[in-house]
Amino acid sequence: MSKGEETKEKILKQAAELFNQQGYASSSISDIMRVTGLQKGGIYNHFKSKDELALEAFDYAMACVSQRYRDAWRSKRHAVERLQAILFVFRGFIDNPPIVGGCPLLNTAIESDDAHPALRDRARQAMNSWRNMLCRIIEKGIERGEIRSTVDADEVASIMIATLEGAVMMSKLYGDSIHLERVINHLNDYLESQLQG
Amino acid sequence: MSKGEETKEKILKQAAELFNQQGYASSSISDIMRVTGLQKGGIYNHFKSKDELALEAFDYAMACVSQRYRDAWRSKRHAVERLQAILFVFRGFIDNPPIVGGCPLLNTAIESDDAHPALRDRARQAMNSWRNMLCRIIEKGIERGEIRSTVDADEVASIMIATLEGAVMMSKLYGDSIHLERVINHLNDYLESQLQG
Repeated sequence: MSKGEETKEKILKQAAELFNQQGYASSSISDIMRVTGLQKGGIYNHFKSKDELALEAFDYAMACVSQRYRDAWRSKRHAVERLQAILFVFRGFIDNPPIVGGCPLLNTAIESDDAHPALRDRARQAMNSWRNMLCRIIEKGIERGEIRSTVDADEVASIMIATLEGAVMMSKLYGDSIHLERVINHLNDYLESQLQG
Repeated sequence: MSKGEETKEKILKQAAELFNQQGYASSSISDIMRVTGLQKGGIYNHFKSKDELALEAFDYAMACVSQRYRDAWRSKRHAVERLQAILFVFRGFIDNPPIVGGCPLLNTAIESDDAHPALRDRARQAMNSWRNMLCRIIEKGIERGEIRSTVDADEVASIMIATLEGAVMMSKLYGDSIHLERVINHLNDYLESQLQG
């Protein structure tokens, strides 16, 4: 990595953590200068505008999160175990988050849905990828006879994502993992009782 | 209602809708002047600061939402039907929201958890009330023999709230009620199979 690429990566990481904690709209260029320790010119040297930095920082944050659940499910073979491995990744979201400030997809979806169309589109793409990843695991499981053929993969994906993201919101609000633990146990039972058999 | 009270109520409603769509931190006093059609003095006449308005507007928004599910569950007698009535209220959250911009508790929790302690405390109180309401319905149901005595009310409340709020986030992101409909069906099955019998 060149010196320039290293600086760009450092800006992305620090801006992603800033945005994930206090939002895009209320983070100023001075805030970004403060967290990166760079002058304005040093930031604009790598990103044309705050909006360009926001979009790339979101992608950076999502890559940190995705990497973690990809590593988890790829270590399993059975489709239900793969889905369960993803559930267990969420256990670490409060005490050992992949990126400070909670789930960047949840935070960005909430901030952008009514207020920032470019970011909202990026959040939709990330949500599509997350849903597609779950659907592919489920469809592969159906092909292999590990999951009932009557299971609707899209429906399971909506239920898993909604439940996990809502619990991240609750556990972050209280600073207490209990809500995430409860929904992980619930989803675990759901996957075992509804997908198999 | 006096003229002054009417103006205050109008400011609260319009500020609550503004905050619910674009967040507290990125809504300026000029934005509030624009949506209310008032001068700065007309606003500060009723609220000491933007922060005071933010807290009161959050309470106003939560009162709009709470009213809707209180009306729904009070029309039922059986505890499981009461919980189901609350699920069905969420069906209207996308096409006919109690307050423009989605769920104020979800939006405020996400914005405030790392960034605004006073609002975060208010969101925690609102989340406590929402959980207590569900717990009281469940505990009453246990007393009356309508719900199994082994059911953990707190656990059911975490699961219901997390799942519904996460689905509001997804459905708002896409502008499509399908995710809410899927989780409502799922929770409906969960309540029938886990709480009764």
